[in-house]
Parts: sequence; structure tokens; C-alpha cells
Amino acid sequence: MTAVEAAMRLAIAEAQQVKGSTYPNPPVGAVILSAAGDIVGAGGTQPAGGAHAEVMALRAAGERAAGGTAVVTLEPCNHHGRTSPCVDALIRAEVAAVVYAVADPNPVASGGADRLRDAGITVSAGVGAEEVTGGLLREWLHKQRTGRPHVTWKFATSVDGRSAAADGSSQWITSDAARADVHVRRAACDAILVGTGTVFIDDPTLTARPGGALAERQPLRVVVGKREISSEANVLNDDSRTMVIRTHDPHEVIQALADRTDVFIEGGPTLAGAFLRAGVIDRILAYVGPILLGGPVTAVDDVGVPTMARALRWRYDGVDRIGPDLLLSLVPG
Amino acid sequence: MTAVEAAMRLAIAEAQQVKGSTYPNPPVGAVILSAAGDIVGAGGTQPAGGAHAEVMALRAAGERAAGGTAVVTLEPCNHHGRTSPCVDALIRAEVAAVVYAVADPNPVASGGADRLRDAGITVSAGVGAEEVTGGLLREWLHKQRTGRPHVTWKFATSVDGRSAAADGSSQWITSDAARADVHVRRAACDAILVGTGTVFIDDPTLTARPGGALAERQPLRVVVGKREISSEANVLNDDSRTMVIRTHDPHEVIQALADRTDVFIEGGPTLAGAFLRAGVIDRILAYVGPILLGGPVTAVDDVGVPTMARALRWRYDGVDRIGPDLLLSLVPG
Repeated sequence: MTAVEAAMRLAIAEAQQVKGSTYPNPPVGAVILSAAGDIVGAGGTQPAGGAHAEVMALRAAGERAAGGTAVVTLEPCNHHGRTSPCVDALIRAEVAAVVYAVADPNPVASGGADRLRDAGITVSAGVGAEEVTGGLLREWLHKQRTGRPHVTWKFATSVDGRSAAADGSSQWITSDAARADVHVRRAACDAILVGTGTVFIDDPTLTARPGGALAERQPLRVVVGKREISSEANVLNDDSRTMVIRTHDPHEVIQALADRTDVFIEGGPTLAGAFLRAGVIDRILAYVGPILLGGPVTAVDDVGVPTMARALRWRYDGVDRIGPDLLLSLVPG
Repeated sequence: MTAVEAAMRLAIAEAQQVKGSTYPNPPVGAVILSAAGDIVGAGGTQPAGGAHAEVMALRAAGERAAGGTAVVTLEPCNHHGRTSPCVDALIRAEVAAVVYAVADPNPVASGGADRLRDAGITVSAGVGAEEVTGGLLREWLHKQRTGRPHVTWKFATSVDGRSAAADGSSQWITSDAARADVHVRRAACDAILVGTGTVFIDDPTLTARPGGALAERQPLRVVVGKREISSEANVLNDDSRTMVIRTHDPHEVIQALADRTDVFIEGGPTLAGAFLRAGVIDRILAYVGPILLGGPVTAVDDVGVPTMARALRWRYDGVDRIGPDLLLSLVPG
């Protein structure tokens, strides 16, 4: 691994740490290498109105940035928003080179690379691009491209596709480790969505509790459906805000969440089936416990497939072991 | 990797090539390293009555075996069967050392290591043991330990646990690559088992066709159940022999196959459910296509689990990508 590749890896890690807290800005990470190639600064995007990643990293580097290289997960912005453009900060710091993973597709903020080149800085792109495109910035890039939030559907299942035993018991299909992973992902998303059915059956709080403790920043909780839920329901407690969307139409739900970037669906088979049939799911995360249950309670019911030729075809883009379980990540095939 | 580790890897590959053709002997591979550490011979166990792996490798090595090292997947046998003991051949060849992966648990054939040591040969064990125990010799070691054949249940499923779409169509849930992998595994087993239901619905030939061509050696085909099958059924064609076992009791089926080592169940949900409930399945191979089907046709029905506390608990011992599909291997948890 070259020094720049190692720096990009660190920049990605910095960005992962702030993912979920940067709305409406993308989660970006930056690392400054000195002229001698040492890491002299690193940082991630601060919450809206705060410093961007490049500025955080440059602050840490101080004068050691001069003549060095800035390694950034996204093309530095050329945009006067609530903060001044990152390209200005990089030019002022007199870095000799900028390396970024992914170009900024946003017409308002893009053009950063050109401005840096005009200032005599060597600019290159593409290091770590695949990892950033498929992972860190997947949701944000989707939003830029389509104007819609990226929708992840998460479910837990036995190897034989069940979400509960015959008597309805479901604690637990997956391990502590898998459930802890879900809380980390909840903490990084903008909204967690369930149907009224899940509220009635499971009465979840739908909060992000990574490491067991309530995260400081909580995603919006969203309940979808036409049934009235009890004011005593856990999902309405004070741990976070909650939006109730009185429709069964997935397109209307997406519309109501249009200002969000990263939506996480944790609903049961009815809700998931509706969203799958509507074609509005962008990623499936299946936590598969190494157990067999059989019986009538399937994790997925009707997905609108009458015959094999019309199967919903996806593609595995990740297979990970989490404790005793598997996490399968699928994207449209 | 040391020269011995590399030789063991080759010995395992030699054994894999003969797996399925060595009944009733175990599939063994052997490699001879010269005194200088070069590979001078390799071989696998021949069909019953033919030479064992050590003898095949020694023949290839000739005089270059003297002073060298024999690397074998199983402790060399000390048993006068249809061939003379392998330990005699190794002593005659004047090898200086023998390294094997796994000790022979068979009281009739064991004692090889002691005899080699008595002849002044350096003997060591354990290199590659985990790979051989969990893979190559898994079925044979199971048979030695329990007296019963090792039973693998293979099924193909969508991510949501379906074996067909709502209208019953199932071609194809998994890819050409996955189906080719099944044929390789069929060729390595002793018997392929289905229920009469599968014969009526799918009319399979149940032959091993690795690479598309009928394998020279075919496993026994076994049909389980009380319904009469048509004499025109493909499973009764001349490509291999077929045994019909008229019972629904999995224990009776295992009893009828007591002289086999490696049984492969390819039956549908009814047969699989009966074997799972009876607790006679030793490994599950799930080929999981990246598709969703929903609907009523589940790959597994009743497995005798009324409530979560009585879930059938397994453990992933292998997760592989095969073309666009996943192959999950599970063993009892």
C-alpha cells in the first residue's frame, strides 16, 4: 500500500465515524500528508454549519500542510454555503497536491478540482473510489443522482427464510453481535421506518443504541400505515422524534422523506413486500442466523412474483460473518 | 508456506480428485519430497483393490524417495487387506520422514505411525489436519466414529427461503455455476437420495454430470417412500443403479445405507423435514440465489420446531461465492 492509499484508508475511517451526523452534507474524511509523507492531520465533516473534513484536517496539520498532500474521500467543494469553499482553505494552506476518491456530482458544489489545478496544485482522483462509491457515500451519491433518498431494507431471518417460530416467538433469530451491528447502522442513517403492524406486535423504541447506550444523535422514527397507534407506544417516547405517515403507498412515503438521504426500513413482511413490489428498495441487508425454524412465519410474504421469469433479481455486494451469523448485502442485479 | 505445507496442499488436491472412487477405502493423497526438498512424486488412492496413495506416489518418485519425506493426508495404514501395508512400502523406499495430517482412527488399519518410528523414520502429524478433518475426510471420519454414513442435505433456495415461484416454476433459482458445483459433489458421494415426491414432480435422472458429461463412476440412486414410481421414471434409467426404500422412517433409510460413507440428500421439503426432525443430517449445503420470490413454496416446511427455544441450531463452517450465488455450509451447532 502506498502512503496515499494508506491515507485514503484513514480518511474513509474518519468519514465513517461522522456518517449520519453531517446531514445535509455528505460524510467526508480528509488526511493531510506532509511534504515528507507523514500523516500530520485528519478529520471528518462536522454537523451542519461546522467545518468540513478538509478544514478539520488542515487545522490539525497547521503549517506542516504546506508542500504536502491532501487526501480526501470526495472532491473538495467549490461552494459558498454556510462555510467557505474547501478549495480556498487548501489553496491558502499551500498544499502541493490533492488526491480524492470520488468526484462531486453536485453541480452547485463541483468544480473544485478545476479551481485547485488553476491554483497550480496537482490533482488526481480515483484512489479508493470503489470502496467510497459502494460504501461510505453510496446513499449520498444515490440522492445526488436520483433526487430520492437511498432506501435500505434490513431483516433478520433463519437460513430457511423464517422470521419467527410457529408460535410467533422470535427472540432471538440472530446473535447479540448482529443486533449490535444493526444499532451501529441505525446510528448512521437519517430515518428508521416501520409499519403500524410492527408497532402493534413488537412495540419497538426504534432508537440507535450502539454499544448499548442511546446515541447522542438519533435518526427520525417513521411509522407507516393507516391504523391509529397508541400514544403509549414506545416509538412515541422522548428518545427521538417520530413522523407518522398515513398511507400504504411506498411512493408517497418516499416523497414524504424526500429531504432525507439514508432511510432504513425495519418493517415486517407486509411493509417490505409493498416496498419491494414498488421497486423502491436500493439495498437489502439480510442477517441470517444459522438456524432452521420451518413453519408458517416467513420473513417475506408476497413480493409480486407469480412465476420464476419475474423473480426479483439482486446481486450480492457483500457477505460478512457477524458473530455466528451472516450479513448478506444485496443491491439490484 | 513451508515445503511440507505446500506438499500437503498438493496431497489434499490429489485426494480430492479421487474422492468418491475409493470406496470402501478413504480418499487419500500422498506426495514424496526428495532429500533436497523437491516434489518427486504424487498420487491418490486407486479404486478398491488398486494401489493406495503412498504407493502411487512412491512409484512416481522411484529411487528419489530414499532419504526424502512422504507427506500424506492420513496416517499410513498398517493393514494387510487387498493390498499390503503402506508402511512396508515406505520403509522399503527408505524415506527419512513421514508427515501426515490425521491419525487413522480405524483399529484395524492404525498403528502405522508406531511401525514407522520403530523402523527409524521420523514421524510427525497435524499439518493440514483442520482442512482434512473438516473437508476431505469429513465423511469417512464420521463413518469411522459413528458407524453410520455421513448425510449431507443439499438444497437450492432464494434469499427468502423459497424453492419455487408461486406457480411452481423453479428453473432456475441458482446459476449454471451452482448446478455445476452440485454435479462435482454428486460425483464424489456414494449415494444420492430423493423422495418419491421429487421423482413425480421433477423426474430427475440423479446422475453425476460434472462438466456436463456423465461421470464414469456414478453414485447409487436412492428413492425413498411408499408410492409406486413409474418404470419409465428417469431415475430408473441405465445410467446408474437405483435402490428403492419403501419407508418414511429416516432411521430405516440410514440403516439400509449402512455400508455407505457419503450420502447426499436432494429431496424436497417433506423428505428434508423428516430427516431434520429425526436428527440424522450431518451437514447442510444451501445454494442461495440472489433473488426474492415470496409466495407459498418454501424450501423447508415443518422441521418440528414449535417455538424459538427449540430452533434447530447449526453453525456456518463455510461460506463461498459460486458464480452469482452463495453456498452456505452448515454443521450441527
